[in-house]
This record gives sequence, structure tokens and C-alpha cells, in this order.
Amino acid sequence: MSVTVVGSIAFDAVKTPFGVRERMLGGSAVHFALAASFFDEVRVVGPVGDDFGPEHVAVLADRGVHTDDIERVPGSTFFWSGVYGWDLNDRETLDTQLNVFANFEPKLSESSRASDVLFLANIQPDLQRQVRAQCAEARFVALDSMNLWIETARTSLIKAISEVDCLILNDAELRQLTKEPNLVLAARKVRGWGPRVVVAKQGEYGAAMVTEEGFFALPAFPLETVVDPTGAGDSFAGGFVGYIAAHPHEPPHHELLCRAMAYGTALASFNVEEFGTERVARLSSDEIHDRVAELGRMTRFIEKPLTLRG
Amino acid sequence: MSVTVVGSIAFDAVKTPFGVRERMLGGSAVHFALAASFFDEVRVVGPVGDDFGPEHVAVLADRGVHTDDIERVPGSTFFWSGVYGWDLNDRETLDTQLNVFANFEPKLSESSRASDVLFLANIQPDLQRQVRAQCAEARFVALDSMNLWIETARTSLIKAISEVDCLILNDAELRQLTKEPNLVLAARKVRGWGPRVVVAKQGEYGAAMVTEEGFFALPAFPLETVVDPTGAGDSFAGGFVGYIAAHPHEPPHHELLCRAMAYGTALASFNVEEFGTERVARLSSDEIHDRVAELGRMTRFIEKPLTLRG
Repeated sequence: MSVTVVGSIAFDAVKTPFGVRERMLGGSAVHFALAASFFDEVRVVGPVGDDFGPEHVAVLADRGVHTDDIERVPGSTFFWSGVYGWDLNDRETLDTQLNVFANFEPKLSESSRASDVLFLANIQPDLQRQVRAQCAEARFVALDSMNLWIETARTSLIKAISEVDCLILNDAELRQLTKEPNLVLAARKVRGWGPRVVVAKQGEYGAAMVTEEGFFALPAFPLETVVDPTGAGDSFAGGFVGYIAAHPHEPPHHELLCRAMAYGTALASFNVEEFGTERVARLSSDEIHDRVAELGRMTRFIEKPLTLRG
Repeated sequence: MSVTVVGSIAFDAVKTPFGVRERMLGGSAVHFALAASFFDEVRVVGPVGDDFGPEHVAVLADRGVHTDDIERVPGSTFFWSGVYGWDLNDRETLDTQLNVFANFEPKLSESSRASDVLFLANIQPDLQRQVRAQCAEARFVALDSMNLWIETARTSLIKAISEVDCLILNDAELRQLTKEPNLVLAARKVRGWGPRVVVAKQGEYGAAMVTEEGFFALPAFPLETVVDPTGAGDSFAGGFVGYIAAHPHEPPHHELLCRAMAYGTALASFNVEEFGTERVARLSSDEIHDRVAELGRMTRFIEKPLTLRG
């Protein structure tokens, strides 16, 4: 079985309190694919320009990611540049050059269409729907989006969401999309549109999930040094969706999804420890397992009987 | 054994998306005391004015809280008024009238001084130190503060913090106090000043704790309806500190503190379900236990072996 991801492949220029990088491999599909590659075969669908060299392909290929559906288009690769503030919670986009991404029409090979799990990273919602339609047999489909599409293509976006199993969105965007400030009610509204699973990404505070069986939440893994938050959300999605893909014979029930949240949290935490894809690209299985185990210890309390003064 | 709390007793006027209340019993000492009253005897130290009637004393007394050290002073009781925005995360203070609180000099009876657990709610740090000195025998002392004292009395505040076992602070204020945006490093800095335990209150995202044994975090309990967030932090502190007080023969080790976090989280969640003190005043022991158990289910994932593609 395998996971197909459709999204951006990019070069990022990033400034954080820990340094500056002028040009790094990035993009939602890349961060997702590297994280998910620990769990299953991954196929990346997205466009790159003439400036995308074999050394960039190698970052994905070295992790066993299938790059056949990376489409080469004359022009430059999608470029994003941003700067993070003192506490890394605020980021300002300095420049976005869509380049070859502007006219992206996803073309999925037979293998990519045959994946049993699909992640629709943040692209125009009508394109997400096209891809979804091409992967009619996928047993689990998750979708991410962003404020731009909520503001400019809300109706299309809600249609796209209605056709997937799981929405993964930043919590501020979940509020904006649903016009509902309360997370429980926002998730209920989204679940009314179709998805069985709603995940709110909460940045440094972690992530929360709502399914038919209820609520689940984990904090972000605590780190002394967060070097570059870019791609954390997509790395989370890669760990989360990848974990589901790694269990092809088990339907994604609540308890499995809770474990998936832990793996997503672990992958996101590695991603932010270094710039770009550096840390995840050389990650080991043991490091992932250790971090998930540590996260368990950091969130588990043992109930003991106590008589209260009622 | 018992808990003494020194802090404000107030009338609050609050406007939230769910309604308006012109004059409710509030204040940090009141919210703390009601929450802690489920765990141990509680003694409240703080000033009130002529407008503080027997019906207000009764709210505390009905929960078994000792009110002998509530000092009656000619004038009006401390008054605070504020308005909450659409998503309840932003609040604007409209009015603060210190009234009898302006010249507060804490006077502790022998019984209050003899408490084995002490909570120094948010008051001027030099007053916190005076109280701390009067309770020399207390086995566990926790302290809260706010941006006002960080900005106007930082040196005194750090001295006060250095004399307690536990700092409980909003995470934005923890950053401001330590000038350190990273929670792990901020907590380490505070622990270097003296406290063994640092708790960062994170509002709707819950709370995180750092002790010598490491990190622990819990999300806020998810609620469909948050009516009035006023006092959530003090209710959290009441549940947390109260839980420690309920275990007089057990030193507050990491695992006990993790359980205390769960009870703090539960008490805070009840507090915000209704205006002012209404919900906690009529809370039952079973409701608290049920919510703690539910919180456990909402944060626990079961690790299972999985071979990753390393």
C-alpha cells in the first residue's frame, strides 16, 4: 500500500532568531513526504522548475519517496520567503513567487491514483477535488488548507472538505472557516459537512482531534531549541497520515487515530529542530519511537482514589 | 492541615458573548478558595469593604471556607470590570478600582499562619514576601503574579519567587518575566531562582509544568460553551494546590503533581461554564472525579509496536 501526497514543492528562504537560510528545499508535499516515508511508501505529486536539481530529488529519493510524479515544468520552482519573530509564533511572509505552481494541473500516474491513502496538501480547493476524484478508491483521505482559500474560495473549499475523511487545519483557520470560535462546535460543524475526523493544529501548543468517539489532544513535544517552524504542520500531517497508512488492515478508529496524533507530534517536533528538511532527512526509527514514548510519559497521569470535600 | 490563600476579594462586572453581569463575587482569593475547598480546609486572607454583605461571605462559608481572616475595611470592595471578545481569548479591562485593596496589609491569624500549604495569589510582590515570611513552616508555597508586577516591580517579584516552591503564571507572562520565549528555557531560568515547580497556564490550550523530573502538559478540558473565563487561572491553581494539600503525608513529587494538574484543569473547566463563582459553588465531588477521568481518556494513547521504515 502507499500514500500519495499532492502539494507544493518549493524553495524556502527563512529568517529565524537562529539564523538565515537563503534557499532550502521545502513545500508542503516535501515536508509531508519525508515524515510519512517512515511509515509507508510515499508518492509525491507536484510541479518543479528548471532550477530543481538532482540533489533536491535525492533528498526525497534517499528516504525511499517515489518522485516519478514530480512534474518538470519550464520556469522556476515555487519560492517562499518569510521571517519569524522573537517567540517564533508570529511569522511574516516576505515573498511568494508561485512560478511553475501558478498553472499546476495535478497529473497522477496509475500508481499514485492507486494509493490507499491520500493527502491533499494546501492547494487550490478545486484542484484538491480533481485529485480526490482521481483517487476514488482511497480508503483514507485527509486535506489541509489555508486562510487564502477560506477567504477567496470558501464554497469550493467546503465542497472539497465534504469529500474527505479528515480535515487537518490550523486552529485559527478552523475558527475562520467555520465562523465558530469554539473548537468543539467548529469541529462539529466540519463533521456535519462530511469528514469523520477533524484535527486542529495549535502550533507550540500541540494538536487536538475530534472524532465520533470524542476529543483527544496532545501538547507539542517540548524543545529547548526551535530553530525553524516552517513545515511543522506538514510534518505533523505526514506522521499522522503516515501512521494510518502503516495500518492498511485496520480501519482508522479513534484509538488508532490517537496513536497517529502521537507520531504526528513527534515528526513535527523533529522538523523544527533544524532548518528546512535537515533534521527529518537524517532521522532514525529509534529516535521516533523514543520521542513517542517520552511524549506518552509527559501526558499521562495516574488516577488514584481521593475523597473530596463535596 | 489547611491551605491559606492571600489575594483579592472582588466584585466583577463582566461582558462576554454569552451575556453581561454587573456585579458578581470574584477575585483571585475567592476563585482559588472555592476550587481548593474540595480538597482541604481553606483560609482566605484579604480585605473587603462595607458593601460586602453576608450573602457574599455565605458563598465561601457554604463551601466550608474559613472567612475569619477576611478583613473589613471602611470603603468599597475591589472592583474589576472587563469585556471578552468573540473568541474569548482576548479580554479588555474596562475599569479597575482598587478601593480597600489599595492599602492592603495582610494580617494572618495564628490559624492561617499555621497552614501547611500557602497560595500567594496575584498581589504586590513585597506583600507576598511578607506573607511568605509569616508562614515559615509551610511545606508547599505557590505564587501567581501578573504583567503589572513584572513591569513595575520585577526585582521584588523575582525575590518573592525565589522564596516559594512553585510558580504558576500565564505563559505570556512567563515569557515576559524571564525574557525567554522558549517555555523549557523559561522554566529552567525560574527554577534557577528557587522554585522546584513551574506551571505555565495556557488558557484554552491548557497548562504545562516543569519539575526536576521533566515536562508534563494537559490540554484544557474541551467545552461546547465557555460562558465566562474570569477566574479560570485561579480555579486551576485552587485545584492544583488543593490536590497537593490533600496529600499532607506525601511530598509533592512529579507524579503527584501530574495528578494535581488534572484536578486543576478540571476545576478551571467548571469555573468557565457559568458566570463568576456560580458553577463551582454548586459543584459535586462526583462531577470533579468524572471530569478528571474523562480528561485521562482524552489525553492517553496506547503505544503499540510498529516497524518503521528507518
